[in-house]
Amino acid sequence: MSEAAETATSSFIAACVEIVGAQHVLTEAHDTAPYLTDWRRRYTGAACAVLTPANAEEVAALVRTAVEHRVALVPQGGNTGLAGGATPDASGTQAVLSVKRLNRIRDVDPHNNTITVEAGVVLAEIQARAREAGRLFPLSLAAEGSCTIGGNLATNAGGTGVLRYGNTRELCLGLEVVTPQGEIWSGLRGLRKDNTGYDLRDVFIGAEGTLGIITAAVMKLHPLPAARVTALAALASPHAALHFLALAQRFAGPLLTGFELMSDFCLQLVNRHFPPMRYPFESRHAQVVLLELSDSESEEHARGLFERLMETALQDGLVEDAVVAESLAQSQAFWNLREHIPLAQAEEGLNIKHDIAVPISRIGTFIEETDAAIAGAAPGARMVTFGHLGDGNLHYNVQAPEGVDAKAFLAQYQSPINRLVYDSVHRHHGSISAEHGLGQLKVDDAAHYKSEVEVRLMRALKHALDPLNLMNPGKVVRFNP
Amino acid sequence: MSEAAETATSSFIAACVEIVGAQHVLTEAHDTAPYLTDWRRRYTGAACAVLTPANAEEVAALVRTAVEHRVALVPQGGNTGLAGGATPDASGTQAVLSVKRLNRIRDVDPHNNTITVEAGVVLAEIQARAREAGRLFPLSLAAEGSCTIGGNLATNAGGTGVLRYGNTRELCLGLEVVTPQGEIWSGLRGLRKDNTGYDLRDVFIGAEGTLGIITAAVMKLHPLPAARVTALAALASPHAALHFLALAQRFAGPLLTGFELMSDFCLQLVNRHFPPMRYPFESRHAQVVLLELSDSESEEHARGLFERLMETALQDGLVEDAVVAESLAQSQAFWNLREHIPLAQAEEGLNIKHDIAVPISRIGTFIEETDAAIAGAAPGARMVTFGHLGDGNLHYNVQAPEGVDAKAFLAQYQSPINRLVYDSVHRHHGSISAEHGLGQLKVDDAAHYKSEVEVRLMRALKHALDPLNLMNPGKVVRFNP
Repeated sequence: MSEAAETATSSFIAACVEIVGAQHVLTEAHDTAPYLTDWRRRYTGAACAVLTPANAEEVAALVRTAVEHRVALVPQGGNTGLAGGATPDASGTQAVLSVKRLNRIRDVDPHNNTITVEAGVVLAEIQARAREAGRLFPLSLAAEGSCTIGGNLATNAGGTGVLRYGNTRELCLGLEVVTPQGEIWSGLRGLRKDNTGYDLRDVFIGAEGTLGIITAAVMKLHPLPAARVTALAALASPHAALHFLALAQRFAGPLLTGFELMSDFCLQLVNRHFPPMRYPFESRHAQVVLLELSDSESEEHARGLFERLMETALQDGLVEDAVVAESLAQSQAFWNLREHIPLAQAEEGLNIKHDIAVPISRIGTFIEETDAAIAGAAPGARMVTFGHLGDGNLHYNVQAPEGVDAKAFLAQYQSPINRLVYDSVHRHHGSISAEHGLGQLKVDDAAHYKSEVEVRLMRALKHALDPLNLMNPGKVVRFNP
Repeated sequence: MSEAAETATSSFIAACVEIVGAQHVLTEAHDTAPYLTDWRRRYTGAACAVLTPANAEEVAALVRTAVEHRVALVPQGGNTGLAGGATPDASGTQAVLSVKRLNRIRDVDPHNNTITVEAGVVLAEIQARAREAGRLFPLSLAAEGSCTIGGNLATNAGGTGVLRYGNTRELCLGLEVVTPQGEIWSGLRGLRKDNTGYDLRDVFIGAEGTLGIITAAVMKLHPLPAARVTALAALASPHAALHFLALAQRFAGPLLTGFELMSDFCLQLVNRHFPPMRYPFESRHAQVVLLELSDSESEEHARGLFERLMETALQDGLVEDAVVAESLAQSQAFWNLREHIPLAQAEEGLNIKHDIAVPISRIGTFIEETDAAIAGAAPGARMVTFGHLGDGNLHYNVQAPEGVDAKAFLAQYQSPINRLVYDSVHRHHGSISAEHGLGQLKVDDAAHYKSEVEVRLMRALKHALDPLNLMNPGKVVRFNP
């Protein structure tokens, strides 16, 4: 950094100290380190400071100060993002603004089925507070013990409840946002219907902090189901799983809250690295689907429904075998199988991850075509394909061939395999980032696949709201003020 | 119009004729008249032409021509809007662009649960095509026989299915839009998950054609329920209805698809003007709620669920009386009661309408307080209060006192009563336009109640996308380029 730049930075830091106090402006390396590397340790940045304001007013004052000093801000929640969206660049000129201390639950309104939370509240705490009020907050994902609702909103997080309850976007009714000018927009409405102008809420959701900083939100609650029951079904192919999904939706309608696909190799990996987890069928099958019913009546009712469904599916030849959980413990064990796939994959070694979506009707064809292309390009590569089939969202991951050095494999194949997978996704009118966002990881890939018109519209929004490009620059869309 | 203006207009019209052919550029008064007055006959405008393009390419070419000639465009669907959003101003310089001829259903994909439709397709046709494919398209409202999906999207229409399925916004996965620069944005994605940048879709939905013209959309389908059953419950107050709603949601979860409140006076009006429609209970009650269950199992299952719910609610003293429909005909008869309220109100004479929403938990208090204020301001005024209680959305209408001339009453009281109702809505953090949009009717009221920050953000969006203010100017937000 030049001397002039250093002077400018110290004057910015001094102004921040005025606003939040010295103990909330971190500048020492051992204090700032946890904020500068992303969850998957793929990116490490630098920052002139890490700011930890306590409320929206302090956030607004910090933003105004950043504007005055032309310092770029990188908002951060639980720092559990998977696309480097909350990690600053390497310049050391940016400041991280952590919302961790905005951690109050402002209101729970069971009759309105809403909860009003600040951006730094941890997801699991919202789930717990909803449950205490006899309600369900259905957003659920692996990082729920440490991710914050602000980050969930900024990345429009998905998770395991999307089939029935939608993404984070669909669970949000209102927002409070600090604009890039350092004003507070109070849009904390708890309304199911409000057609009084442009949908500002959805502009900020999923924008990864590049258009402003979300400081609080009104989130939807749902009735707490009386019972949740899971089942596993063994099938011959993803195509069969599609037909089975349609049948399950006809039988169960909105009670079907989970429909997760796992290829046989996924379960082999789980079995290899977590041997206590047994394969749930007597003989092996190409695909296993995990289904979940959330029933407002009773466990028996859900189990009865599952039994009728499985009987029909077995008779129709859609399903080769099936098992309905007999207890809560068994239901949990089925979910454990699913949740251990990424862990087993990590144990197996470095791998190439893709978080993609295609129209549900194209999933079978997408897998066939893309598997074949990868087999041609990288012989012996092992496909770890699993995910939220009911949402058209696959974690379509690639593991090095058995016995091959994973690091060497990735060095050679990561780029060409990414291109091949994304090209295939694009041909099938899909998304190269279904639930993880773009961050810095996919910002250029997204621009590559989007039309010029779309990129221009995105830049027009960015320019309209953040003309100085001080809000998380370099993420989501590249933009020169 | 000045001579110069007239020359400019003729040159615009000549260019339009080049694009769509003379028969699709209407300029004769008897041809244009149906496009120039709104559904409720509150607004009549003028237009230099009514344009009826056949596809998105023609719409784009017309927009480019309009930009070149600086002619403002007023997009129009079925012309059934309730806020004058599709009616041009009186200047005669604007052109109406009707999407009626964009009326193809491009694709039905039952496995993806989507239907791809052009903006001019009539809502009822989408419902029918979904049903043919064994699916449900749940958007349903009074004008469904003539409104178009383009208009539903532009106004984010609500209707009777919102409790379970959401507004039009929640039913849309992707859009094709002609931008104010006359480019086509192809965002026709049929994905449940796509986090690859800003949510352009939701920017255009609900913008009433002020940010661009929607030409096609991918809409969500749902499984077709096996049965729909309705029931009526008699209650003492809106407060009781709130508690009953929570109970019904606990019993039925997502199977509860309708929860409509009707005050006793609403049903008296229906009875007075449509005598064959009988009051459904032996004695009179202050409030009646219509409930609907959409059941994936069977009619019997739904009826059993209703019976258990009503038994509990009667025991708890929440409900004073209840009747569950015994047949499809009786289910329909219950809905007919509800649907005849606006018709009966029209028969009773001119009245003041409000389409408002408040947090569901505040509905009882809102009604009490606002009723009292109106009784004070306009003694004898009769409240016609009904609507989608499950969505917090009331049609909170005011009829002149019995025997008083309605026209004179409106002349004196419409403005002060509107102010009083909107002030009360504002105090309860509600919306002055829950499902009808702003159009020209409420554009200034909305600006009055919104914060300066919000109005500025709306103007920033408008300026970013339509800097010349040629897209439906004067609607939603006032803006000077």
